[in-house]
Amino acid sequence: MRSPTFDTFNEKWAERMIGRISRKGIDSYLNLKITSIEPGRLVCEMPVVDEIITNIGNMHGGCLSVLCDHVLGTIMYPVMPAGYWAATTEFKVNLLAPVSKGLCVATGEIMSMSKRMAVVQIQVENEGRLVALAQGTSTIVPPKPKPMPT
Amino acid sequence: MRSPTFDTFNEKWAERMIGRISRKGIDSYLNLKITSIEPGRLVCEMPVVDEIITNIGNMHGGCLSVLCDHVLGTIMYPVMPAGYWAATTEFKVNLLAPVSKGLCVATGEIMSMSKRMAVVQIQVENEGRLVALAQGTSTIVPPKPKPMPT
Amino acid sequence: MRSPTFDTFNEKWAERMIGRISRKGIDSYLNLKITSIEPGRLVCEMPVVDEIITNIGNMHGGCLSVLCDHVLGTIMYPVMPAGYWAATTEFKVNLLAPVSKGLCVATGEIMSMSKRMAVVQIQVENEGRLVALAQGTSTIVPPKPKPMPT
Amino acid sequence: MRSPTFDTFNEKWAERMIGRISRKGIDSYLNLKITSIEPGRLVCEMPVVDEIITNIGNMHGGCLSVLCDHVLGTIMYPVMPAGYWAATTEFKVNLLAPVSKGLCVATGEIMSMSKRMAVVQIQVENEGRLVALAQGTSTIVPPKPKPMPT
Repeated sequence: MRSPTFDTFNEKWAERMIGRISRKGIDSYLNLKITSIEPGRLVCEMPVVDEIITNIGNMHGGCLSVLCDHVLGTIMYPVMPAGYWAATTEFKVNLLAPVSKGLCVATGEIMSMSKRMAVVQIQVENEGRLVALAQGTSTIVPPKPKPMPT
Repeated sequence: MRSPTFDTFNEKWAERMIGRISRKGIDSYLNLKITSIEPGRLVCEMPVVDEIITNIGNMHGGCLSVLCDHVLGTIMYPVMPAGYWAATTEFKVNLLAPVSKGLCVATGEIMSMSKRMAVVQIQVENEGRLVALAQGTSTIVPPKPKPMPT
Repeated sequence: MRSPTFDTFNEKWAERMIGRISRKGIDSYLNLKITSIEPGRLVCEMPVVDEIITNIGNMHGGCLSVLCDHVLGTIMYPVMPAGYWAATTEFKVNLLAPVSKGLCVATGEIMSMSKRMAVVQIQVENEGRLVALAQGTSTIVPPKPKPMPT
Repeated sequence: MRSPTFDTFNEKWAERMIGRISRKGIDSYLNLKITSIEPGRLVCEMPVVDEIITNIGNMHGGCLSVLCDHVLGTIMYPVMPAGYWAATTEFKVNLLAPVSKGLCVATGEIMSMSKRMAVVQIQVENEGRLVALAQGTSTIVPPKPKPMPT
């Protein structure tokens, strides 16, 4: 089934976001880097650095959740009109295989989008295998009406 | 409905884990601290420090996912026989309200447990409100049989 | 954590729904019967009749999904103002044990409720065991404004 | 990302299941009909008959849950060795649009499969739109070892 069509696509926002790594916060800690943005599709990478490997030798599963949550939170912005806000309402993630090295590449796709809400699916690959699959809901919040000038 | 009863409870493991903060990894970055462990019940805290607040002024939602994932990954150990291993198979989380300060307190409860699998529910409170609700599945993996001595 | 408090409770609606079995539809086919309604809490029963037992001797798991979905769809009505509408946006269900006889009793609880949305948890018991656990999201839709009289 | 490859494909089972409608049970009530089976892929149809339309004029959402659950429960059989058993452990479904007529066509795909477990995604289309998206986990249970002959 085809993805929905999108009325809006903020190319400038997309250009600004690609390749950037935050200087602060959990996305900075995990070196999350968006590498591609198209209408309704976003790719984000996370390098599996030694810092996030546990004693057992695998990456803490929580890192994959943050990666999925980050895709869910950013994929909406370029396809909403200016001033709109997207809140991740919920998501579900299946962790499919342990990760211990290389790069995690998450690809998100907006599968459905109404005025109120969007449903996004995310696949995460690592070393040629699928390591996580997520499905989540984003609530679209319109900007507050400006007060009438007096 | 009552929680399941548990045949095993590793009190020493529990004592060792309470109050400890990891020196490395995403749980260290987020200052995750387990404050209470009973059979089938575990409480874990995360302080909402400035480092994890985004430009908009709220905590990155991914931090709540890590917190829930961390509870899911640790709650199983004290109630499994030695040598067993628990793998977080999947979870679903609803994010209920933005978080911007104070302490997040996650309480996990094993709702069902068989030889193969457990289902855990987690509630996260912040500043007197419920801010996240999660439900997840943990797969119980028995230790590999030791090779016969020759 | 306490459930939210509710501004509205439509006692008449509750009285009308209790004990009634639909004459048509999948809830009628499954003999779904609401037995208790309080603000933010609803109990619904499903008898495990021979008709819904498969060749293997267990109830088709889909019946538990319908039961959970039905609770999610009805629990909202008595606590919303007249004219409001609740749409089940999504839910997740863990099936915990096979069911083959007796009565399934589903208890739903609204765990969180804003102007826009509610999160509901549901437990299903059968023969003294927990057999399903669900968590879902309901979107609250206000009535359409009436056109101005001319 | 490609689906997994499958070692087994029981073509006879597939042929026997295609086009058949059960004589009993909730799948019979909903006229569920499998129309296509390939390794790791299964299509199942549900006609939106008047019987399952509620007073409001839409199909009871629970019918979509049963359809998804049914796909999850049947997609595993042709790709498991004889004697194996698949138990739907959990699934999550997003309901995307109201359904009131025509045919619901569910397409399931096994996205990941290990010895222990498989993750399946399901899309349901109706009247040219996506109306439900589901993701679920199936636990693979090996046959019990036969007792030694005496």
